[in-house]
Amino acid sequence: MKQLKNRNPSVPGFKAAGLSCGIKDNCIKDLALIVSEVSATAAAVFTKNRVVSPSVTWSRRALTKSGSCRAIIVNSGNANAVTGLKGLNDCNEITKKVAQELNIPQQEVFIASTGIIGVPLPSERILLTTPKLVKQLGNTAKSWKDACDAILTTDLVPKSDRISYTFKNQHIVIGGITKGSGMIHPNMATMLGFLFTDAVIDTKTLKTALKEAIDRSFNRITVDGDNSTNDCVTILANGKAKNPTIKTGTPAYKEFLKALTNLCKNLASKIICDGEGATKFVTVRVQGGKTRKQAYLIANSVATSSLVKTALFGEDPNWGRIFCAVGNAGAPFNTDKVNILLNKNMLLKNGSPTNLPPKRLEKAMKQSEINITIDLNCGKEWEEVLTCDLSYDYVKINAEYTT
Amino acid sequence: MKQLKNRNPSVPGFKAAGLSCGIKDNCIKDLALIVSEVSATAAAVFTKNRVVSPSVTWSRRALTKSGSCRAIIVNSGNANAVTGLKGLNDCNEITKKVAQELNIPQQEVFIASTGIIGVPLPSERILLTTPKLVKQLGNTAKSWKDACDAILTTDLVPKSDRISYTFKNQHIVIGGITKGSGMIHPNMATMLGFLFTDAVIDTKTLKTALKEAIDRSFNRITVDGDNSTNDCVTILANGKAKNPTIKTGTPAYKEFLKALTNLCKNLASKIICDGEGATKFVTVRVQGGKTRKQAYLIANSVATSSLVKTALFGEDPNWGRIFCAVGNAGAPFNTDKVNILLNKNMLLKNGSPTNLPPKRLEKAMKQSEINITIDLNCGKEWEEVLTCDLSYDYVKINAEYTT
Repeated sequence: MKQLKNRNPSVPGFKAAGLSCGIKDNCIKDLALIVSEVSATAAAVFTKNRVVSPSVTWSRRALTKSGSCRAIIVNSGNANAVTGLKGLNDCNEITKKVAQELNIPQQEVFIASTGIIGVPLPSERILLTTPKLVKQLGNTAKSWKDACDAILTTDLVPKSDRISYTFKNQHIVIGGITKGSGMIHPNMATMLGFLFTDAVIDTKTLKTALKEAIDRSFNRITVDGDNSTNDCVTILANGKAKNPTIKTGTPAYKEFLKALTNLCKNLASKIICDGEGATKFVTVRVQGGKTRKQAYLIANSVATSSLVKTALFGEDPNWGRIFCAVGNAGAPFNTDKVNILLNKNMLLKNGSPTNLPPKRLEKAMKQSEINITIDLNCGKEWEEVLTCDLSYDYVKINAEYTT
Repeated sequence: MKQLKNRNPSVPGFKAAGLSCGIKDNCIKDLALIVSEVSATAAAVFTKNRVVSPSVTWSRRALTKSGSCRAIIVNSGNANAVTGLKGLNDCNEITKKVAQELNIPQQEVFIASTGIIGVPLPSERILLTTPKLVKQLGNTAKSWKDACDAILTTDLVPKSDRISYTFKNQHIVIGGITKGSGMIHPNMATMLGFLFTDAVIDTKTLKTALKEAIDRSFNRITVDGDNSTNDCVTILANGKAKNPTIKTGTPAYKEFLKALTNLCKNLASKIICDGEGATKFVTVRVQGGKTRKQAYLIANSVATSSLVKTALFGEDPNWGRIFCAVGNAGAPFNTDKVNILLNKNMLLKNGSPTNLPPKRLEKAMKQSEINITIDLNCGKEWEEVLTCDLSYDYVKINAEYTT
């Protein structure tokens, strides 16, 4: 599937590095570090899974205590989840080491991990490699590419993006890197996202903006319906742009939110393009909803239906499965008012089949981008959920992950 | 995977037939008829999908109007769902024809359909074949086998069972046939079940018994998380056993419920054994729960996790995925109290890994029957959900269904 171009995510005042510490075999990069030159305002959203990695526990605590952040250390290849007491101890040791090497307070060091669950983290490898990692910190395209590479698991490609805008003569930059291709589902997924901006923005506003942006992006993608133990999206704002402080509800906030949402959407789309085994990029849009919740439940039901996803993989114009998934959403709607379109072909009008020529539909299904639009015709609310198809390769990747 | 043996489901006073009417190609059987010699007390449970087949609408109405049933006509190969006004009209024509041929009231004829959604039902073929079908009615093993065969879709094998018991010198028989292998999920699935007994039992008690039995059987199986537009389980009781009327809450009721639940469990297990692409029969048991709901949510989350199901297919001892799915269930529990066992191997004790030798676990995962037991250690409630693994063949079957 066509991948969206990665932009260099570099933002003034931030540095990155990535290298191999030996968690993964064959010198594959597995350790990344992102550092802000100054203490940055921070906000984060964490997994809603009740089983959480000590890394999540650690970073959540650090964020609550300090509200600010200087560095994020990320390892891939091991989720440091379900690892007992050793797990939290490892987080303490690793963040202490990073803090020492950078000469910053330990509570300003966040940690994130992704990979296999239930295997003790080989933390000594991380500790040994940290000094070298700190030395390699830079703000070149290569530095960021290294960091991007080092956070991947079953991802086939690194994922980064950058967006900038000017508001009242102030130039603001937001960059981000992300990883994830399986266990991808709202709230959140084995998905890590690290965003950084030079904007001046207070903690509360940054938190609100992150939440709003995520609810239209990272929380609206699904690969396989599983949320992981480790997910987080963190944003750091270092204030280098020296703009007047952005406050909720102001025009400056709207501009910032728009840019942040677009950045998150681009990064979220990259995750779907790289979905495990994906051959199609699928947008399920529910419009004409009475409430956002109704629209979301229905979009999510279609986007998570194995029967819809296998039909898309098989380019099988078996659209009845789409309507069936709409009915399964657990949300009320009037079946006689529903229209369903697939890449602009009307399949169902007012709840009845339009009996389109199968050839036309078959042609539409051969596209690598599939837009399914469901119009409930009962209001103005909408939601979009991005997903991919379910292919042989999804099964292959997940049946053979640790063996 | 090893299939459970089918018993001849024949029950005194019931007849069956099955043949090909030409909905499916190659003379494959696609039309079945089940008839009670006398008007039978009836109860049914229908799909919770909001998009329902006119067949469901018809049978639900007939049941409400008459509370009794003489005949059920079932076609496979076409779900008669999302077929507009024609769909309900077809149900009317078909049940009218069956009623005429059997010389019974039309409102005592139920109808069920399963197969592709959104394609008009070729009802003229059913109408033409009905007289022949009625002539073939019989209570031999062959008659029942024909009916069993005629209701299948992607099923690889027919599914029937029979159970009998004696209570206070009264011999009671319950038989049943079922179909389903994809779109299998609680409440209900593309699953049809037809149960028949010679017991004397009043309508209300029969309804209660059916609901209770289904909540421990058909509503506790999942293949792919999709509920269909057409599901129903119907039970007919013709009173031929001449026992004193069974009433809720009595010892006679308990015996009947036990037998009915066992029959439904056996039939439900057959569906899982024949799950699309299944190579493993998986029982997820959550025990030590505070409430049944908590136990169910957690069992269901594990049983529907694509990551767990692909790991089982790959015989991959990646058990962290099980605990991750437990955490994803949306039900509160104390992570420090959880034990997880896989085929009697303790993987997690009090929320911490037991670090079993991987070889032992690998051996356990090679079994074709997998029992995952999750003990929450916070109460006495339990739930069991049956499922299968997610294999290449699931994708193959569903990507190529109509093409």
